[in-house]
Amino acid sequence: MEKNVSASVINRLPRYYRYLGELLNSGVERISSKELSERMGVTASQIRQDLNCFGGFGQQGYGYNVEYLYGEISAILGLNSKYKAILVGAGNIGHALTRNTNFEKRGFELIGIFDNDPQKIGMEIRNLTVMDPKNMKEFVEREKPTMAILSVPRAVVNQVAQELISYGIKAFLNFSYAELSTNDDVVVENIHLGDSLMRLCYKISEADAKK
Amino acid sequence: MEKNVSASVINRLPRYYRYLGELLNSGVERISSKELSERMGVTASQIRQDLNCFGGFGQQGYGYNVEYLYGEISAILGLNSKYKAILVGAGNIGHALTRNTNFEKRGFELIGIFDNDPQKIGMEIRNLTVMDPKNMKEFVEREKPTMAILSVPRAVVNQVAQELISYGIKAFLNFSYAELSTNDDVVVENIHLGDSLMRLCYKISEADAKK
Repeated sequence: MEKNVSASVINRLPRYYRYLGELLNSGVERISSKELSERMGVTASQIRQDLNCFGGFGQQGYGYNVEYLYGEISAILGLNSKYKAILVGAGNIGHALTRNTNFEKRGFELIGIFDNDPQKIGMEIRNLTVMDPKNMKEFVEREKPTMAILSVPRAVVNQVAQELISYGIKAFLNFSYAELSTNDDVVVENIHLGDSLMRLCYKISEADAKK
Repeated sequence: MEKNVSASVINRLPRYYRYLGELLNSGVERISSKELSERMGVTASQIRQDLNCFGGFGQQGYGYNVEYLYGEISAILGLNSKYKAILVGAGNIGHALTRNTNFEKRGFELIGIFDNDPQKIGMEIRNLTVMDPKNMKEFVEREKPTMAILSVPRAVVNQVAQELISYGIKAFLNFSYAELSTNDDVVVENIHLGDSLMRLCYKISEADAKK
């Protein structure tokens, strides 16, 4: 089902998923592409086109069944998985992510947190005790997490990633302000907060130019 | 120059900009689309296509002049602007962003920080003193910032945004785990860290399916 889907559709699916989740929570059972488009600020034809990539779940004159569509998108994204994840670097970003994110609804289970700051080792975050990176090898080889969230300083991120890959980690969510260089077997999602500032700067310049 | 450029090209420009900045720092004067594509992990034809949107800065057999291309992308993104920005909510995300981001190179100047936590008011972050939100109206009307970074709790984000719009703010970088509902005059860049987790989950599932 997930074949031949473009990266930009995949990029939009999490947003559909969040919106449908909110609709579901408010007791909405079905929605037309027109209504969904108004809420989401995209065109109705974009929505129909995107959802058609997966065989289309809409019915003429009825619209989309919210619960069904929510379930299908969840399945496409693989959110029913429980991939084990560790967090390396319990600084501000790591904290923000662990406090505010429902990992379980995003396909992951957070099983370990590491930080080399002696003041953080032993601290409790989200019912997990921050561990010394000295124990990382033993932990990863025993627990076999699939993914690591990296929020370590830019200067060391590639070294940390290589180390984790050698222990068997296959995926990274990278917050470290540097792009990871990895081989094809490893999947990476880079988050560059500065890029969002640049995109916003572009939008502001563009809006100014239109005046 | 910036007309008729698709959103997905714009989305990729910050990454080109970062890469070219790194090349520039390492003293590289010119680069072929092939070399640039290998470093960035995208196809050479994608790069040529993207940069052609702006008239194309490459020369057959020579490649791209790094400094020139860097300057052009900077101009397209509007990064030479100095849009004044304020940060509302000096929690983990706000801290991470202010500590690690070179606002000045991203088109912005951070001029004020607000938080309603009495323990944070008066604190120094990046040479700025955290202010009480009671003073926000007076400050915004006097200093006229263009943009606000919102890292406030999800439950209050729309209320805070409406308040800031009424004082004259026209753009938001929103970290608040809720989408902003604003009018067409206001530009918004939403950052949903959970969406990145979902995208990564999809990539892992897809890689698993290929095995």
